[in-house]
Amino acid sequence: METDAYIIESPQSGQKEVEQPKSPESGIMEQPVQTTGQKMHELIRQLYPICRSITGNGVRKTLDLVSEIIPLDRYEIPTGTQVFDWDVPKEWNIKEGWIKNSRGETIVDFAWSNLHVLGYSAPVHKTVTLDELKEHLYTVPGQPDLVPYRTSYYEEKWGFCVSHNQFQSLTDDTYEVFIDSTLEKGYMSFGEYFIPGETSDEVLISAYTCHPSLANDNLSGIAVAAFLAREISKKKHRHSYRFLFMPATIGAITWLSLNERRTKFIKHGLVASLLGRPGAFTYKRSRLGNADIDHVVETVLKMSHRPYEVRDFTPYGYDERQFCSPGFNLPVGCLTRTPSGEFPEYHTSADNTDLVTAETLQESFDMYRKILHMIDVNRRYLNVNPKCEPHLGKRGLYPNVGGDRTGQDIQMAMLWMLNYSDGSHTTLDICEKSGLEYSVIDIAIKKLLESKLLIGL
Amino acid sequence: METDAYIIESPQSGQKEVEQPKSPESGIMEQPVQTTGQKMHELIRQLYPICRSITGNGVRKTLDLVSEIIPLDRYEIPTGTQVFDWDVPKEWNIKEGWIKNSRGETIVDFAWSNLHVLGYSAPVHKTVTLDELKEHLYTVPGQPDLVPYRTSYYEEKWGFCVSHNQFQSLTDDTYEVFIDSTLEKGYMSFGEYFIPGETSDEVLISAYTCHPSLANDNLSGIAVAAFLAREISKKKHRHSYRFLFMPATIGAITWLSLNERRTKFIKHGLVASLLGRPGAFTYKRSRLGNADIDHVVETVLKMSHRPYEVRDFTPYGYDERQFCSPGFNLPVGCLTRTPSGEFPEYHTSADNTDLVTAETLQESFDMYRKILHMIDVNRRYLNVNPKCEPHLGKRGLYPNVGGDRTGQDIQMAMLWMLNYSDGSHTTLDICEKSGLEYSVIDIAIKKLLESKLLIGL
Amino acid sequence: METDAYIIESPQSGQKEVEQPKSPESGIMEQPVQTTGQKMHELIRQLYPICRSITGNGVRKTLDLVSEIIPLDRYEIPTGTQVFDWDVPKEWNIKEGWIKNSRGETIVDFAWSNLHVLGYSAPVHKTVTLDELKEHLYTVPGQPDLVPYRTSYYEEKWGFCVSHNQFQSLTDDTYEVFIDSTLEKGYMSFGEYFIPGETSDEVLISAYTCHPSLANDNLSGIAVAAFLAREISKKKHRHSYRFLFMPATIGAITWLSLNERRTKFIKHGLVASLLGRPGAFTYKRSRLGNADIDHVVETVLKMSHRPYEVRDFTPYGYDERQFCSPGFNLPVGCLTRTPSGEFPEYHTSADNTDLVTAETLQESFDMYRKILHMIDVNRRYLNVNPKCEPHLGKRGLYPNVGGDRTGQDIQMAMLWMLNYSDGSHTTLDICEKSGLEYSVIDIAIKKLLESKLLIGL
Repeated sequence: METDAYIIESPQSGQKEVEQPKSPESGIMEQPVQTTGQKMHELIRQLYPICRSITGNGVRKTLDLVSEIIPLDRYEIPTGTQVFDWDVPKEWNIKEGWIKNSRGETIVDFAWSNLHVLGYSAPVHKTVTLDELKEHLYTVPGQPDLVPYRTSYYEEKWGFCVSHNQFQSLTDDTYEVFIDSTLEKGYMSFGEYFIPGETSDEVLISAYTCHPSLANDNLSGIAVAAFLAREISKKKHRHSYRFLFMPATIGAITWLSLNERRTKFIKHGLVASLLGRPGAFTYKRSRLGNADIDHVVETVLKMSHRPYEVRDFTPYGYDERQFCSPGFNLPVGCLTRTPSGEFPEYHTSADNTDLVTAETLQESFDMYRKILHMIDVNRRYLNVNPKCEPHLGKRGLYPNVGGDRTGQDIQMAMLWMLNYSDGSHTTLDICEKSGLEYSVIDIAIKKLLESKLLIGL
Repeated sequence: METDAYIIESPQSGQKEVEQPKSPESGIMEQPVQTTGQKMHELIRQLYPICRSITGNGVRKTLDLVSEIIPLDRYEIPTGTQVFDWDVPKEWNIKEGWIKNSRGETIVDFAWSNLHVLGYSAPVHKTVTLDELKEHLYTVPGQPDLVPYRTSYYEEKWGFCVSHNQFQSLTDDTYEVFIDSTLEKGYMSFGEYFIPGETSDEVLISAYTCHPSLANDNLSGIAVAAFLAREISKKKHRHSYRFLFMPATIGAITWLSLNERRTKFIKHGLVASLLGRPGAFTYKRSRLGNADIDHVVETVLKMSHRPYEVRDFTPYGYDERQFCSPGFNLPVGCLTRTPSGEFPEYHTSADNTDLVTAETLQESFDMYRKILHMIDVNRRYLNVNPKCEPHLGKRGLYPNVGGDRTGQDIQMAMLWMLNYSDGSHTTLDICEKSGLEYSVIDIAIKKLLESKLLIGL
Repeated sequence: METDAYIIESPQSGQKEVEQPKSPESGIMEQPVQTTGQKMHELIRQLYPICRSITGNGVRKTLDLVSEIIPLDRYEIPTGTQVFDWDVPKEWNIKEGWIKNSRGETIVDFAWSNLHVLGYSAPVHKTVTLDELKEHLYTVPGQPDLVPYRTSYYEEKWGFCVSHNQFQSLTDDTYEVFIDSTLEKGYMSFGEYFIPGETSDEVLISAYTCHPSLANDNLSGIAVAAFLAREISKKKHRHSYRFLFMPATIGAITWLSLNERRTKFIKHGLVASLLGRPGAFTYKRSRLGNADIDHVVETVLKMSHRPYEVRDFTPYGYDERQFCSPGFNLPVGCLTRTPSGEFPEYHTSADNTDLVTAETLQESFDMYRKILHMIDVNRRYLNVNPKCEPHLGKRGLYPNVGGDRTGQDIQMAMLWMLNYSDGSHTTLDICEKSGLEYSVIDIAIKKLLESKLLIGL
């Protein structure tokens, strides 16, 4: 069941994607109700088997599936394109990959899990001794049952990833290794969905598409971003929204290189990652540290009355390290559940579709939705009658019933908004100063706008 | 007895308003000594019976009595005068008001307490049923013995305030109601006392005059302000002082509207209210939050070594809400004892002359006096010999006796004043940095001024 | 034995002044190894017997001995020279001073300890009664065994300092007092050693030379400053260094008066004092309070993992009071062990060569050396490739072995340096933000400078 816990204050809360069950009398079988969380989980299950990397057909298939949800603009950037200090790498594709022992038995197969082949592995086909094979095998000794996720983007080599148990059980034999991959001039693919708003001020949501069969990292981020984009596209918003689906690091660098002039419109941003596995929300601040996005996320997390953690910016992690490089220094943070490297399934075969749940995805979606809503409403107003209080009574702005708690709160909210709408305080600032619920502040704003006592800046 | 506890550091402490008893040998009966606290309490007892509201003859009589203490400038502002978003209301006066039962017995009478008639009540004279009467009666169910204070300034209606016990004892009868009030074009009255100082920098003290028979709220503020004004007028001060006695809200709005160009001289201000009932001093900061007045009041409260509370500005309360509206944003705080709404007698017939005491009024007076003194002396000096220490020895500024504690402190105070008198630190800043008593700093300042090592800025 | 505890991170740690013992086979007797601490203690023993004051031959002899370690520039400023609000005083010299009783027995003799004669004592030769004598005797009643250190620079008088025990044992007798001192036009002497660096930015180290036989106060400061200067002169540094050896107060005032135009080059400074007696390091901040020197000293003290104390600036103490007078306000702090007046031997005959130890002097020397090193390396760099991360891999800047802890730290350090080298963050800022050891940051800086990804500002 979808929980309502996070939707109380959101104006979109009435829009849950729940189809009303047909009445039994209609004679048609009841369809089970599918929540957004369940739809996100379904998308993850579809995306999971695809072999992704920073380039190649797996990324294209991934973008195809996302395109079924939102109308992505697709970009293909040629190998060798210079993007700041980097070049777009060769395109990597793979058809097959296995190891057979001397008896011809397949002991490792890319078909079983695309994690088995080292990401960006060079092609190989030869027979090797056990010792030579072992130089090309990657394991996690501390988690001997699991197959690790490893890549070698910038040094050309071949390799396989196996469980440490299997590694240790290998006998002194000769092995046929075969990887049918190509590393050739081609393209790097990414997708973008821009939703124009009332203003050119942009909110950026970025999810990375380069990880193969890892469900939490980062199919969860892709799923949450895609469904958020669909939700936002249904309504008018003050901000414009830009959703990016692209490989980590080289993707962000490429996008920034191609769109350098547009970055001035990015007023707020979040990297969406690790959102399907239960665990407390963890927010990593933008490099600015006190940007509106930092303020908003921290406030919404605090208002959730659930455990959460906020950390300062560090120059490693996901694409916030590019968006927050000193030459850009954009207000982009990163909101995850348990952060990278801090959960045991991280970068292993255990990060599968069982690790992520529809409930957790729904929670993450709701949290992002609340944050984006707060970003959209968090703005500065101007009291156009700033000298002394305006006469609220003659405008019918006093509550009718004196003892009405909400009425009193709304009147207080009007006084707070009037006093602090001096062009420097945001709605969120006033929320915090007054200790009033945003929903009450929101009613006061609407009344004061109607009475032409406030104007939006 | 007047306590000396608060006067230790004040230069005015020698000026207590105590008439020396005549010696017994003179043969004249000893007169009991009357403290300022007792005089303030006497003024409150005189003011208490008067029926005040935001306009009318009650306000004029109140200003008459204050004029016996200080030479008030009196202003009469015509009904309909536009003051920012407001208009000066009609003048309200009342001669009589009562309810009689069918047997002709008076059961409620304005003559018993002016709280019995709803403030600004329209005139009425008719016979009504119990049910109709009840629609025009106001009570405090939680305090069934007390008569509440209620007004209806901006909606014309008639009404009476009674105890809830009386309300519940009313029998099914017909009642004659009579209110002989007038609501007509007239004037709003206020009084002002300006005491010019050495500079045009002004300290504003404001007390509201619109509450009828309520002793703490705000006859105590009127009394403290009037006696402070009298005290200040006796001596030269660096600042000019402006004392305002005017109705809450509409009075402050009117004054600000008429004196907009003068507000630039207001460097510090306090709203004086709720100063007669025992309870810890409570300071509400100006909207600026870090104005000199905020700094001074908090320091003096801290130095009092008694419980006190400091609160951030909120846009409701007394006239600080007008002085601190964003178009003015003046450095005006509010210093009370227990704040409004937080003591049980608030806005009821229990806020009478027994609730306020001469001792508490004296304490409040002393606290205000210390604060005003600190404001006056808290200024910036300039060390005119700022490169290295000046040679104190050749000017005879070293203490004669090495082991003399005060002498050493004064020498330290000279070093602190010389080092930090750079135009940006105030006396109070230096007091706090050095940890020295203000009295010691004061001696050092005088010595350094005499030696022409410091000049006042 | 010299301890290595403080030298771990210092690049100079390999340069301990330890002569390698000759091998036994050489047939030459082994010389005991002499540490810098021992050399400083030896210098203090040589300086101890000299009678110093703010002027006179004792100061010259002191500067002679310091000149054997570093090539001092010597200055002689004539009596009467006006320096800001002061004049250079008469030169004081003394040959002899004693008290004899009526039997011709010497009971106090300057030859026994130069503390016995009041500093700057006028000459005297007469016979006095016990009562008259007592008016010219100075003692410390609370420490009856000890002879105090007292001076009278600006009031001409004669006097002797004796133990309180001796004072009390004096019998009713006549006494011959003789002080063969001169107070004449002459010179005030000071020494200066300037070590030019790569830039004109200066670090100032100041030690005062006016105290007679007091080992900790301040022969320890003179010794540490002299040996630091010798050490620094051996290597190129980014900063220039200026070491001053001059009398307290009048010396600093004179230097500032003569060098006013040069003070703009002083970017960091420390007054070196009280460094030979064990006790926690105590840092008194510059008047600025947040200067780089304050930041550096506090960080190095914190990194020492030993007790220390940091105090705010006060306008009394040593020559920081002149350097930090408001007309200069230079970034000069004061780093001592237990501060003045807070150890029982302060300004008495117990502050002798036994009070200070080679080990403590070595610790103080090492702490100053680390601080000066940190000041020299604490600078701002600029990432010349600020848009997105540079491609470290293609420059061979990735660690070869993934699991190598130091390698990972260096890679992190490169990311931190690249991200925060925006012209506003210093090395020390980045050290603190990242939590990485400076030694790791240092390696990263060198790699990034070599790769031309950073430039120094």
